[in-house]
Amino acid sequence: MFTVASILLVGGLAEGYWIGKKPENDHSVTRLEDIVVPLQYATEAVVNQGIEKISNIVGLDNISVSKGEIESHSGDPSGFVPPKVNERPYCVVFPSTVEQVSKIVKVCYELHIPVIPYSGGTSIEGHYVPTKKGISVDLSHMNKVLALHEDDLDVVVQPGIEWMQLNEELRPHGLMFGPDPAPGAMIGGIISTNASGTNAFKFGGAKDNVISLKVVLADGTIIKTKNRSRKSSNGYNLTNLFVGSEGTLGIVVEATLKLYALPKKEAIALMNFRNIGDATRTVTDLVKNGVSCNAIELMDDRQMRAVVEMGSGGSRKWEPYHLLLMKLGASSDSSLKEMVKSVKSIGKSNNGFNFDVATDEEERDNIWHVRKTLLWNSLNWAKKIKPMAHILPTDVCVPVSKLPELLSKVMEKMDKANLLATAAGHAGDGNVHVLVIYEPDQFETAHKLINEMSRIAIELDGTISGEHGIGVSDKRELLVEELGEDTIGTMRSIKFALDKRGIMNPDHIFKIDPTEKRRPYDDE
Amino acid sequence: MFTVASILLVGGLAEGYWIGKKPENDHSVTRLEDIVVPLQYATEAVVNQGIEKISNIVGLDNISVSKGEIESHSGDPSGFVPPKVNERPYCVVFPSTVEQVSKIVKVCYELHIPVIPYSGGTSIEGHYVPTKKGISVDLSHMNKVLALHEDDLDVVVQPGIEWMQLNEELRPHGLMFGPDPAPGAMIGGIISTNASGTNAFKFGGAKDNVISLKVVLADGTIIKTKNRSRKSSNGYNLTNLFVGSEGTLGIVVEATLKLYALPKKEAIALMNFRNIGDATRTVTDLVKNGVSCNAIELMDDRQMRAVVEMGSGGSRKWEPYHLLLMKLGASSDSSLKEMVKSVKSIGKSNNGFNFDVATDEEERDNIWHVRKTLLWNSLNWAKKIKPMAHILPTDVCVPVSKLPELLSKVMEKMDKANLLATAAGHAGDGNVHVLVIYEPDQFETAHKLINEMSRIAIELDGTISGEHGIGVSDKRELLVEELGEDTIGTMRSIKFALDKRGIMNPDHIFKIDPTEKRRPYDDE
Repeated sequence: MFTVASILLVGGLAEGYWIGKKPENDHSVTRLEDIVVPLQYATEAVVNQGIEKISNIVGLDNISVSKGEIESHSGDPSGFVPPKVNERPYCVVFPSTVEQVSKIVKVCYELHIPVIPYSGGTSIEGHYVPTKKGISVDLSHMNKVLALHEDDLDVVVQPGIEWMQLNEELRPHGLMFGPDPAPGAMIGGIISTNASGTNAFKFGGAKDNVISLKVVLADGTIIKTKNRSRKSSNGYNLTNLFVGSEGTLGIVVEATLKLYALPKKEAIALMNFRNIGDATRTVTDLVKNGVSCNAIELMDDRQMRAVVEMGSGGSRKWEPYHLLLMKLGASSDSSLKEMVKSVKSIGKSNNGFNFDVATDEEERDNIWHVRKTLLWNSLNWAKKIKPMAHILPTDVCVPVSKLPELLSKVMEKMDKANLLATAAGHAGDGNVHVLVIYEPDQFETAHKLINEMSRIAIELDGTISGEHGIGVSDKRELLVEELGEDTIGTMRSIKFALDKRGIMNPDHIFKIDPTEKRRPYDDE
Repeated sequence: MFTVASILLVGGLAEGYWIGKKPENDHSVTRLEDIVVPLQYATEAVVNQGIEKISNIVGLDNISVSKGEIESHSGDPSGFVPPKVNERPYCVVFPSTVEQVSKIVKVCYELHIPVIPYSGGTSIEGHYVPTKKGISVDLSHMNKVLALHEDDLDVVVQPGIEWMQLNEELRPHGLMFGPDPAPGAMIGGIISTNASGTNAFKFGGAKDNVISLKVVLADGTIIKTKNRSRKSSNGYNLTNLFVGSEGTLGIVVEATLKLYALPKKEAIALMNFRNIGDATRTVTDLVKNGVSCNAIELMDDRQMRAVVEMGSGGSRKWEPYHLLLMKLGASSDSSLKEMVKSVKSIGKSNNGFNFDVATDEEERDNIWHVRKTLLWNSLNWAKKIKPMAHILPTDVCVPVSKLPELLSKVMEKMDKANLLATAAGHAGDGNVHVLVIYEPDQFETAHKLINEMSRIAIELDGTISGEHGIGVSDKRELLVEELGEDTIGTMRSIKFALDKRGIMNPDHIFKIDPTEKRRPYDDE
């Protein structure tokens, strides 16, 4: 702000890419309407100059313009938030070092070429749709563990390592990374979307598990957000500003992550409930009584009906009632036994039934498999009823006590609209994935209802996204409803402070282009 | 950024307060040298206009210009980072509502009057020294619990409530707030300095315990950072940007905090060690073995010598060896017993001795009292040897495994310089408070050595501040050494993005005024 204002008073702007009428003032928030003409990006000819420069940085072998790579770096295979025809990167670059990333971004900064960071490609909100074209920076070649500090329970990694691979490398040391998002997800993307998973109840999401980051900023500057000590009160928390910023502020090129000791003794407790309220009260009572589960997962009766009817639950006998799965971990058999006892008694006092415990590893894996495959199981089940069925996942999160109200309101709407829906989620966190099943002619209805679900979550003091992020989906508009124009305007001020040319993953999380009409708001 | 650049091209700046030569470019980082002329602030005459407007907002009863209030809102009684003669606020304002705070800040924004937020006044790094004069906004009248959500384990509070008072109100509900900083500290200040305390090992610091914030920005805009759900991936983490920002980005006017169940069964385990390495290895082994202590505190042999020689340890027999205090909490007697057994065996395997356990509440309070009063005990002890002794606290934090190296290097330097020093701290977090005792003629030596200690911590991949913050102490310069010019420049970009007139607690954390020569770097 300051620097440009300075230029102004001596007349003459070095590189001005914004033209327009006088804005209101120097407020803290930047509203979309303050941006009177969109940012300018490089033409294809200029991009080609850039690609030549970049090829000198990484070598021709590490730039791809193959149709396959271009396609796979445009939108995720789920197709939930598909790219438009023109939304393809000019090329995909595979850097191997922090310095290469910095040099690549410097070229893009110089020439105003959009930069779209890419790691595991498992996100589902269009996080790497190149809305303004540009260059996809694929970090999968940077996939090493750089340093393991066993005694400090931390590890320094590159962004292209898969979390499951990381855990493989940590297992012999008796250690693990806390979050457990989708298989295939890489640390870079996990950080950028603040992903979590079933373990978040105990270990938190990405934001709770990153000690420090090395980041390449929009102009190629490399910064480190912190040193490696666990605690600090040393200035702005840049670490957590970059976590969840979806590549719009910079590229994460190195991360120091917290680690945990692998639980010595594990068990999964299972219990059925006839109503969701009893299940969520069980969650609250567990916490209040100091019973520290590693995960508390909910599968609703519709979900369980799908499991029963599809016979997809393995050898175990499942019943079509709401199900709580509680992952328990302890340091000894006796304390595990005590936890199981508490869980059983608390569940029973909330009308739980069919209590069971699995301690055998294979049995636990089978149970968790049922949880992890529920999306596809729901879809297959739906296809038996409606052969042309498609599925849409959702991701609202509310205070735990509001979960029953949320689900009953949502399911009532689904039933009325004649849409199949099942629900499952991270009950301990109040984060629920309602899976909406629709036939092609119901697409619009399904979208409309999903947006209504988001509004119900907002009304219940919750969020439209517990762990998937915003991307370029309808959630961008819903996020304004959730947080208000001024909160989004504060984010936009930060965006333009760190990325003055708007090249970092443009249009994601919130709009920066008032002329953009990418995704009309479905129900308006 | 964008908006001012727009003005430029149509010629004419609405309210330009910056004059100077053309800066380099539109980089992501704002270096101090980019600011070629300091920000302009209101003259006393203009401030008086502002005070009149503010008196219409809060009423004359809620503005004070009394010498006592002015003094107490200039610097903390410890005097570790004293204000200069001219560093006094023009007045102290006591708002009662969010809207009043917003209106007050709007007046200050309009007239370019510095705003210095104030709550408990227990910070010790000059956090509320009004370097550019201005108005002190005291939030102590906003001290209510607004909503307690027992089933969601959260509470909505105003910033002026003391954390100990909050815990009093929570106790009947079997709940508690995690962090336990200095007595008298209020939630607003705890959030602004990212304070923590002994419980941080289990519950984290302020940043881990805030769900969402309501904040008044530099132009008076009121924003809410999030809704109340536990988890979210919904845009930039503004909550954690404001936590620890020391009032430089806005005023926290409401906070939603996480709560925890009070431990049902508690005990304190004690154990002596002959060397620090054995003590820190005990910490690591406890974590690796899944023994989840609520706090792990260290008092070094010098500290314990002071306790023994001053007879300040109550009825318990203390010995002059390094001491680990481990606070244990469990949900049942049997699991507590099991924890105690593990702690004892792990400690012994690391050459610990004099193992003991206190379960009785009074006894536990006595032990914790020894820990909590060690600063004054060290000072009294020192005064017996050097009657004119003063004390300086410090706050470095390193990876736990580096703690022995840190302490041995530091103590060697202290001994060589003939300075008395004792050490105590949050061993579980690697955060240690070396208390440096000096006589008046050793002031400069003491300061020099403290800065050297900070540099040792930085070399060991640690930080100069684990929980006290930066304020306007020497740490501002040391923070540049710790994080680098570009990381600080990134913070400065964010500062100017949200506070374009530089009115929010100016000069704190990092410099924004290149002409400022407030505190010369002691050892340069």
